[in-house]
Parts: sequence; C-alpha cells; structure tokens
Amino acid sequence: MNAAYSRLAARFTRMATINEAAAVLGWDAATMMPEGGGAARGDQLAVLAGLAHGQLIAPEVADDLATAEAGETALDDWQTANLGLMRHAHTRANAVPPDLVEAQARANSACEKIWRTARQSGDFAMVRDHLAEVIRLVREQAAALAPALGLSPYDALMDGYQRGIGAGDVAPVFAAYESFLRDALPRAEAIQAARGAAVMPAGPFPAAVQEALCRRMSARAGLEAEHSRLDRSTHPFCGGTPTDVRITTRYNEADFSQSLMGVMHETGHALYERGLPAAYARQPVGEAGGMAAHESQSLIIEMQACRSDAYLAAMARELTASFGADPAFEGGNLARLLRHVERGFIRVDADEMTYPAHVILRFRLEQALIAGDLAVADLPGAWNDGMKGLLGVTPPNDTLGVLQDIHWYDGAVGYFPSYTLGAMAAAQLMAAARRALPDLDASLAQADLSPLVNWLRTNVHWQGNRLGFNDLLLAATGRKLDPSAFTAHLTARYLT
Amino acid sequence: MNAAYSRLAARFTRMATINEAAAVLGWDAATMMPEGGGAARGDQLAVLAGLAHGQLIAPEVADDLATAEAGETALDDWQTANLGLMRHAHTRANAVPPDLVEAQARANSACEKIWRTARQSGDFAMVRDHLAEVIRLVREQAAALAPALGLSPYDALMDGYQRGIGAGDVAPVFAAYESFLRDALPRAEAIQAARGAAVMPAGPFPAAVQEALCRRMSARAGLEAEHSRLDRSTHPFCGGTPTDVRITTRYNEADFSQSLMGVMHETGHALYERGLPAAYARQPVGEAGGMAAHESQSLIIEMQACRSDAYLAAMARELTASFGADPAFEGGNLARLLRHVERGFIRVDADEMTYPAHVILRFRLEQALIAGDLAVADLPGAWNDGMKGLLGVTPPNDTLGVLQDIHWYDGAVGYFPSYTLGAMAAAQLMAAARRALPDLDASLAQADLSPLVNWLRTNVHWQGNRLGFNDLLLAATGRKLDPSAFTAHLTARYLT
Repeated sequence: MNAAYSRLAARFTRMATINEAAAVLGWDAATMMPEGGGAARGDQLAVLAGLAHGQLIAPEVADDLATAEAGETALDDWQTANLGLMRHAHTRANAVPPDLVEAQARANSACEKIWRTARQSGDFAMVRDHLAEVIRLVREQAAALAPALGLSPYDALMDGYQRGIGAGDVAPVFAAYESFLRDALPRAEAIQAARGAAVMPAGPFPAAVQEALCRRMSARAGLEAEHSRLDRSTHPFCGGTPTDVRITTRYNEADFSQSLMGVMHETGHALYERGLPAAYARQPVGEAGGMAAHESQSLIIEMQACRSDAYLAAMARELTASFGADPAFEGGNLARLLRHVERGFIRVDADEMTYPAHVILRFRLEQALIAGDLAVADLPGAWNDGMKGLLGVTPPNDTLGVLQDIHWYDGAVGYFPSYTLGAMAAAQLMAAARRALPDLDASLAQADLSPLVNWLRTNVHWQGNRLGFNDLLLAATGRKLDPSAFTAHLTARYLT
Repeated sequence: MNAAYSRLAARFTRMATINEAAAVLGWDAATMMPEGGGAARGDQLAVLAGLAHGQLIAPEVADDLATAEAGETALDDWQTANLGLMRHAHTRANAVPPDLVEAQARANSACEKIWRTARQSGDFAMVRDHLAEVIRLVREQAAALAPALGLSPYDALMDGYQRGIGAGDVAPVFAAYESFLRDALPRAEAIQAARGAAVMPAGPFPAAVQEALCRRMSARAGLEAEHSRLDRSTHPFCGGTPTDVRITTRYNEADFSQSLMGVMHETGHALYERGLPAAYARQPVGEAGGMAAHESQSLIIEMQACRSDAYLAAMARELTASFGADPAFEGGNLARLLRHVERGFIRVDADEMTYPAHVILRFRLEQALIAGDLAVADLPGAWNDGMKGLLGVTPPNDTLGVLQDIHWYDGAVGYFPSYTLGAMAAAQLMAAARRALPDLDASLAQADLSPLVNWLRTNVHWQGNRLGFNDLLLAATGRKLDPSAFTAHLTARYLT
C-alpha cells in the first residue's frame, strides 16, 4: 500500500466522520430539537458540510490521487475500487466552481422554504421564479459536471445519486413499463373489483402499541437494538450511521399499516447500513452502493417480503397479539388491504404497480428541464398532461400535482429514477434469493427475515460501493438490471 | 472595525459552531445513543475537537491577532474584551505542544475507563499508575501554560475553568471557611437534632409525574420549551447550545426531591446560557463567564431560591397537586427534608454547609500533586486524613473516598474550587438581588422566579464573558468575592 493512498484514506475517514456527525445532527433536528434551535442547527450543518467539502478540495488531494494512481506498490481490488471512488468524488467536487456551490445552497434553501407555503396553498406561481432559479443553477451544475465525468448533463446529475446507470439505460426500461402498465393496470383493477373490498380493521390502534409492534417486527427482521433507535418524525426516514442507525416513523391511530409498513421499509435501509463491510467503514468503497441500491433494500423488505402471502399470515398473528382479535386481521384480507392498486395523485401514497408511473413522469419532465426543452412556467401543465397520459387522472390542483415533492424545489434533479430502479432491483434480487433459498416462504411465515437478510448481506451489503448499480445486480443475480423480474412479480401478485 | 478583527470573529464563530455540534452529539451520547454507537461517537467528537483546535492554532491567527491589536480603527469595549479573550484562547492553545495535547487525550481516556471499574471495586491500586501518568502530563501542561500566561502552574490550570481568580485568592477564603465550619457544623447539627427529624413523604412518586412536575417548575423559573429539552441520563447535566439547551435528570420513584432539585439546578445553568448576549453569540466574549460563574447561576436557583422558606411553601402546593396530599408536604417539613446537614463521604450528595469541605480537601490535594509535594501513591491516605481533619469522618473504602470523582482521572485539575466559588458567589448575588428587589419573597412564594432571573439577566447573564470572576461580582454586587455573604446565609438558614 502506498503512502499517498494511506494519506487519502485518512482524509476520507475524516470526511466520513464529519458526515456522520452531520447525520446525527440531522436526525436530531427532525426528532428531538426544540423549534428555537433551528437557526443554529442550520449553521452547524452548513459549517460541517463546508469542512467535509474542504477536505475534498484541498490542493494536496490532487497530488495524492495522482501519486496513488501511479503507485509502485500494488493495491488490492478493494483498494483499487476505493481509489477510483476517491477520484470520482474529487472530480465531482472540483468540477463545480465554489461560487456555484454556494449559489445553489442559497437558492435551494430559499426555494424550499417558499415551496412549503406554496404547496399548502396550491400556489405554484408563488414559487415559480424561485424554482426557475434553482433549475437554472442545476443546469449550470450539470454543464460543469458533464465534461469532467464524460457523461451527458442529465446523466451527470443522476450519477450523483446512483453510479453506473444513465438515462440511456433507463428510458427503454421505463417505456416498456409504461406499455406493461397500460394493459396490466385495468386488468388488476378488474380482478381487484371482482374480489371485493377489504374489511377495514376496527381500530383505534394506540400509538404506543403500534410502536411496540413496529419494534418487535423490526427486531425480527434483524435490526439490533444495540445499534439502532426508532423514533417519531413528521417525515419517516433512515438516518444516523452504520453502527448507530436511526429510523423514524409517525403513528396514525386509525391505521396501523402506515407505521408498520413504513418501519419495515426503513428497516430495510437500516439493515443495509448495518451490513456494509466494516473493514472499509468510512471509506468510499465501504458505503452503500447508491440510492437505487439503497431503495432496493428497503423495498425488498417492505414490498417483496412483508407484503408476501407468507409474511402476511405471520403479520395476522402479530396484529392479533398486539391489538386483540379482529376478523380483518386475516391473511387474505390483509393482502386485499395492503396490496390495493389505485390510480392516485400522490407518489408517496402509491401502490407498487402505479408508483413507477409517478417516477416515469418526473424522469421525463426533469430531463426536459435540464435539456432546456421545458420552461419552469410550463411545468404544471406538462405535469397534468403527463399524469393523464400515464395513469389517466388529472390532478385537481397543484398541491396534488407538481407541488407535491420537495426534490426539485431543493435542487435534487436526477434522483427520481432511483425509486423505480430500486423497486425493479428488489424484484430481481428476490427472485435470485428465492432460487438460492427454496424454503424462504417458511421463514417468512414466521415473520423471520433472517435467511433473506443473510443472503442480502452476502450478495449485496458486503459489496459496499465496490460495484456500480448494474454490476452489483450482475454479481448478485447473474444479470444486469432485468425489469422482467418486476413485471413477473406484479403479474403473479396482481394479475392471477 | 478592522479587517483582521473581522477575520478573527469569523474564525471564532466557526469554532464555536463546531463546538455547538459537539455539544449536541455529547448530549445525544448521554441520552439517546444506543450502546453500539459509542465507538463511532468517540471518533466523531475527536474529529470535531481537532477541527476546532485547528482553527485556533492555524498560522494566520497569530498575524491577525497582532494586526487587530495594533489596529488603527478603534474597537469598542466589547470588541476589545473579545479580542483579549481571543488572544487568551490562542495563548492557551499554542502554549501546549500538540504531542502533549495528544498524549493527554490518550492518557485521560485510558485512565478514565479503568477508573470506572476501579471505583466500583474500590481498588485504587488498579488505577494508580494510570493516574500517575495523567498527573505527570498535567504537570507538564501546567509547566507549559504557566510562563505563557504569567501565572503559577496551578493557577494556569484553574484559569482553564475560571478566569480572573487564583489559588492566592482562594486559599485564605477556604481557610476562613474551615474555621467557620469547625464552629458552625456542630451547632447546626445540635439545632437540627433538637428540632427533630423530618416526616418522610410516603411515595412512591411515579417517574412520569415527577417529570411533569419538573417541567412545570422549570418553566415557572423561565426556561422556555421552545428553546430547551428535559431528558433522562445517568448523570444529570446541562448541555446543548444557547438557543437549544438540553438538561437531563434521573428519577428515583422513592424520592421526588432528587429529580426536582436537580432539575432546578440544571435550570439555573440553562437560564444562564439562554440569557447570554445574543449580539455576541459564538464569540468568546458572548460565552458564559467561566465555571464558577456558571455554578453560581445553578446554585442561586437551586440553593438560594428553591430552598428558601418562601419557595418551599409554593413547592408544598405543587407537590400536593402532583402527588396528592401528604402531611410531609408542609413547608416547614420540606425545609427539614431539603436542608438537612450531614457529614458524609460523597461530595455530590453533600448539603450546602459541608460541600465546601469536600472542595477544600480536593483543592489542597491537587495543589500538592501539581507542586510535586504529594505522590499519587500517597493520595488515598492523604485523602482520608483530610476528610478526618475537615469533617471528622474517615471513608471506609476508596469508593467512598479518593475514587469517587471522575475529575482527576480524566485530567481535570483546577476545576474543583469552582463549585465553592460558585456557591459563595450565589449567596453574594442573592444578597444583592434582595437589596434590589425588596418583594423577592412574594414572587418566590408563587414559585415565580422571573424577578430574580430578570435581575440575573441584567447583572450577570448579559455580561457574557466580558469580565473575570471577581470583576463580574464587583459589577453585579459592588464587591469582589466576599465570602461573608455565604456564611451569613448559612448562619441565617442553619444557626438560628
């Protein structure tokens, strides 16, 4: 191992440690912080972000990278991959001029603040000019990144969230899904209608009992209390650090399923963090393999495992143990309840069959925004047209339309495809896991996710960030992204 | 204002912001963090401490300080005081070689870890060599600091906790208190015995009810929920930041007074942080005026105000409202219960009359350790002799003796005097507040601390760190430290 590589490794450890501190402070802001601490917390996070960024753009990094890359002492495969990721991070950080980074931070923060009010009042005009400025700066950012990374401007943005897959790979996959959905969705709706509505559980479901149930099911999935917390926040998330994962949820006393399925989703994210290779902790190669990979791990738990017939049978028993007997807690009825397909307006409320349509809409619109083919002023109309085309519904107002997601208003363009790539990867990984673990359903029927999680540890988690998205799937399943596993899953679950 | 001063102010803001982040992470470690997060948290805090220290020892600071001090544009009084404190912080940080700083961090951490086991088993020999190494390094540190600060080695250590008072001021004050106590303690015990024992409240006192009571009384003292939290931890403390103060306590269901008086103590610390001058937030001059000043603010609330006859009458009503009627909740009985004098072994359990004896013992021993007049191996014997001399009791083992406090084992020498200086200052400030607020008892009798707290805001909190300990007292009370207020307070409370 060469000295330059060691210096870089120490530097990236320092950076990651600063980012860990920021992650805990971010969790605290969402769960614990009194309102009056908000302004100071913003400053604290900004200073930490600046310090982490400073580590990456320090002049000596370029020299160390060049020396390490030309190093006479050979690096092993992991170290080589790590060095490649360091170079990649350095390229991204240095491609964007500091003035632009700062202008984006300011514009995003201002826009996001106004978006909160605009969303509530359904007033797109209120935030339009701010969003236009955010998008203008994102286009500058994309233009700066593209030549440095050798990618198209939009792919350069995507690369910031998920390495190893671009719009050229995604567009045909999404087009094929649109075709699938055009046929499958009406069929699923017809089958669902013929089957009749689910019996609604009576409730109410006391928050404290829901919380205990969530903890129990999350622990049965393998999340250790010694290395995690479950708390409450307005918007559920998985944060913290690999040895101290913090997941959150919220409780609706009329509906146990929001917290339970939400916690299982976050548990999937948390298990990924817990399973990352400890030997490369705080190194780029030891991180999770991108946002689509991360979403595949939450969705394989929430959608593939916990919504399976086998698991729902176990859940029926657990619900009875928690809340007392209710005829609605029967496995088949839970399936009707938790696998209900519906053309809705809101992405985060969508079922797994219609969810990709929400993503496809955003993927196409944001590409057009970055290409300059769509003006921000025309966005609400394009949104509503797109919804009509994809799902046959037109949002009655912009709160249920273009204003619903924070992403663009906060400068996050290129993120949305990760959700559906994750869903597709989850199906592909589940099919591979089923081939490897013929008795998988028997453990799911005990709410025991350990065989599945062990398989994921070996085939996904322990890879860290060594491989790009497609290569990770290739290594784990024998194929690059193959969306047929997802449509096969939907066909089996909704069309038979 | 000159440019060099502005650059320094920006640097100190950055430093303070990093320290704020560390403060929240420290709070989290004590209250929320799952055990498995401990190792990573240690790294996070070490990296943040290094970054903050790095800001202070950066080569350009010396130039900026010299330029600012010679600046042609005049600074106002606060800015001048601020610049002086910057110089002082810089002098302290640069006087100690980085190798020594690192050696101390390692030695303190190793010693403190072993001390936890040694204390439990009462085995001083187990930790003796580690403590000897810690003290050896503290002596090196003191020797490095002394010439830079123009102070004696021990005063240079004291200066790290409380600026503006040294052993030469403290020693005669403590000697006089020892004389006072020799006469006063037996008299107080006799009066207490003649009065008869307190009726013990029946209990139990459910933790949740105690918590609600603590919140209510802390809010009545002026601590705003919008800028604070109350949580649980093994060792109560006040942490967080001035706009987001985090206080903690623990609940003993057999005794409401531990949590209630503990929370009022921490509320005093918290109110000080809340009252610091916002215009100088994150500048040295805007910080609290040292550890003795801080302790004066916790003790004026806990000891002076909340243990007064007037406040105890209000507390009696609040206890009845929380826990139901109990004859033990009568004001006079509460006084017997909460103002009980006793010669004990443990400092943190001591009453306000004997507490200074515990501090005097440590003050004398640590001076001897730093002077080289006492070997670590002889410490347990010297401790027990000292206890015998000061309080007439001999600890039956080292758990109740030399092993009880973390301070020395963690390298903190020169801190102990702050506790008693704070108690004395609290009495002096209370006497001044009473002169200024003739109706003070009427508000205390309503559990309303706002007149007292407003007086403290004006006369103590808003001074920030502008003045040293003695000058702060001079400005607030017309006199430098005058221990006669404390003995007068004890005489009135315990000897009449």
